[in-house]
Amino acid sequence: MAETKMEKGAALLQRMFGATTRGSAMSPDFAKMTVEHLFGELWQRPGLALEERSLVTCTVLVALGREAEQRIHFRGARNLGIPRAKLDELLMHVAHYAGWPVAASASRVLDEVWKAMDAEAKG
Amino acid sequence: MAETKMEKGAALLQRMFGATTRGSAMSPDFAKMTVEHLFGELWQRPGLALEERSLVTCTVLVALGREAEQRIHFRGARNLGIPRAKLDELLMHVAHYAGWPVAASASRVLDEVWKAMDAEAKG
Amino acid sequence: MAETKMEKGAALLQRMFGATTRGSAMSPDFAKMTVEHLFGELWQRPGLALEERSLVTCTVLVALGREAEQRIHFRGARNLGIPRAKLDELLMHVAHYAGWPVAASASRVLDEVWKAMDAEAKG
Amino acid sequence: MAETKMEKGAALLQRMFGATTRGSAMSPDFAKMTVEHLFGELWQRPGLALEERSLVTCTVLVALGREAEQRIHFRGARNLGIPRAKLDELLMHVAHYAGWPVAASASRVLDEVWKAMDAEAKG
Amino acid sequence: MAETKMEKGAALLQRMFGATTRGSAMSPDFAKMTVEHLFGELWQRPGLALEERSLVTCTVLVALGREAEQRIHFRGARNLGIPRAKLDELLMHVAHYAGWPVAASASRVLDEVWKAMDAEAKG
Amino acid sequence: MAETKMEKGAALLQRMFGATTRGSAMSPDFAKMTVEHLFGELWQRPGLALEERSLVTCTVLVALGREAEQRIHFRGARNLGIPRAKLDELLMHVAHYAGWPVAASASRVLDEVWKAMDAEAKG
Repeated sequence: MAETKMEKGAALLQRMFGATTRGSAMSPDFAKMTVEHLFGELWQRPGLALEERSLVTCTVLVALGREAEQRIHFRGARNLGIPRAKLDELLMHVAHYAGWPVAASASRVLDEVWKAMDAEAKG
Repeated sequence: MAETKMEKGAALLQRMFGATTRGSAMSPDFAKMTVEHLFGELWQRPGLALEERSLVTCTVLVALGREAEQRIHFRGARNLGIPRAKLDELLMHVAHYAGWPVAASASRVLDEVWKAMDAEAKG
Repeated sequence: MAETKMEKGAALLQRMFGATTRGSAMSPDFAKMTVEHLFGELWQRPGLALEERSLVTCTVLVALGREAEQRIHFRGARNLGIPRAKLDELLMHVAHYAGWPVAASASRVLDEVWKAMDAEAKG
Repeated sequence: MAETKMEKGAALLQRMFGATTRGSAMSPDFAKMTVEHLFGELWQRPGLALEERSLVTCTVLVALGREAEQRIHFRGARNLGIPRAKLDELLMHVAHYAGWPVAASASRVLDEVWKAMDAEAKG
Repeated sequence: MAETKMEKGAALLQRMFGATTRGSAMSPDFAKMTVEHLFGELWQRPGLALEERSLVTCTVLVALGREAEQRIHFRGARNLGIPRAKLDELLMHVAHYAGWPVAASASRVLDEVWKAMDAEAKG
Repeated sequence: MAETKMEKGAALLQRMFGATTRGSAMSPDFAKMTVEHLFGELWQRPGLALEERSLVTCTVLVALGREAEQRIHFRGARNLGIPRAKLDELLMHVAHYAGWPVAASASRVLDEVWKAMDAEAKG
């Protein structure tokens, strides 16, 4: 039986972030749209591989300096198998196109996320 | 007797934020210009209702991802009688025009402001 | 019989912009999502009046300096009955929250849109 | 007899840009506030020299990618005696803090402004 | 004999954009740094494949709304073999993270670049 | 014997920030490029005085709302002898070109940096 968009979105959120809803502070309708439309429809499209969508998303978040969301999507990137070295290289590249400051701040976030996930892995 | 711009601005700051100056960390001249020009002149103009100025200001702060100032102006919006549901809807709308990340972060700020003001109201 | 989201979105696009699709340069899937999800779902929600959505959208477009899209949405605002004086006041307000330059550029766009629509009205 | 803010602002606009109002497309009230408050008050303050205000303004306009306003303020910078070499160096510096793309675009604007003013000087 | 950074950078610029220098309006020192440091060093690093650097660069340019540079790098992407469908999908994805307006404008640029290159190919 | 770029960059970092590397969270290659290219090459160029580069950098950081980096560069500005009054004036100026919110937040950062350095000076 076909999965609904909500089910597909929730499964992807679980796989990437280990949680079915991203931000419990969102209003119920906004949270629903995020699961259903963003992760259940957009991220499911075949035109880009999941790893590519993750890299593109991380790139936007670095370029726009959105550090709270970087924290979530760097975690997602690691859970999709993207190595830290690739994200480090991405930050150095983006530094030249969106400025050193956003890349310097993103370096701090990336380091914190990686250390936290290393610690979780050791349990 | 006619109020000065300083008096009008201070009264509006008191009504919206419960304080006569917004940021004590500002230099004295910048703080004075903020009270006199921003709140004592711009916000007093008849072309937009106070509630409309508040919604427009919140929209800019969400679109530009200015979370510290969202904290102040979401409070101001509530003090002007704007319901949370309207601000939640605004966040979902702005998500599509300025990106999901700024709206997700603003959702957290809005939730914190509302809970803090609920607690103060019970106080 | 209930309208589909596509039909609702297309009707709103027609009412606001006088065209059923906004940007023929978009890929077919992106154009479809714009009609169906953006105008057929988001803009149809009851939490904000159409005029409020238009003002919020114009505010984001001014704050982010997106002049090509201002050209479209200032037209939409006028077609929804929003007077030029209100948009002029909005620009002056946003100048203080997103900077004079975006408001100065938006003033030029607003003036061009209004003059073009005046000319069309005289036909 | 003391000059009014309007007179001071208009004189500075004339000196920097060769025109008493910057943008005739602005609403009358916004244009008045621009002359009186922006150029008649802010730019008249002693805390920064005129040349420093010009460099700071050009820096913001490059960092934010506001090309229409760069066109005006690069002209103003030249009229205040700032050499092109200094502005070229500024663009290279800002490239590293706000990204190569805004500096590349600003280089084109700077080149156009300088060539236009060279041509005007030759008459 | 080892190529210099200048030679490597110039070769990559030629391959991607069909020109040895990107912006003749840049000052000579800035143009040199662009060839040598940006394309001769950063883009040559092994941590990301050329196609990945191109996608990351296009993503930043769309997210930040830098249309003049999109025109250059969409061309570069095609010259590296990236299909239009992938860039179209990227625009739809970025629309959700940086807002519809930057993606709508980028769609127009992408369409123009592709049509221009199709015409050049037919010659 | 001629200093290398690394040595020049490290010396400038030490003078401005009291540390040889800015962000230990950066990847080794990105940190090296920051010392060598950014501080060892760009900041060493003669076209702008060090104090001018500092003001330009602070201006970009305020305009783009990069508060973590403001914390570093306001410190650098003070170590180069730039008085607080000049930075306060810069904030008020930038408020008009990039919006009040970025300047209000930068005022808080500036106040914190100055108080911390006053305390260190008393030590």
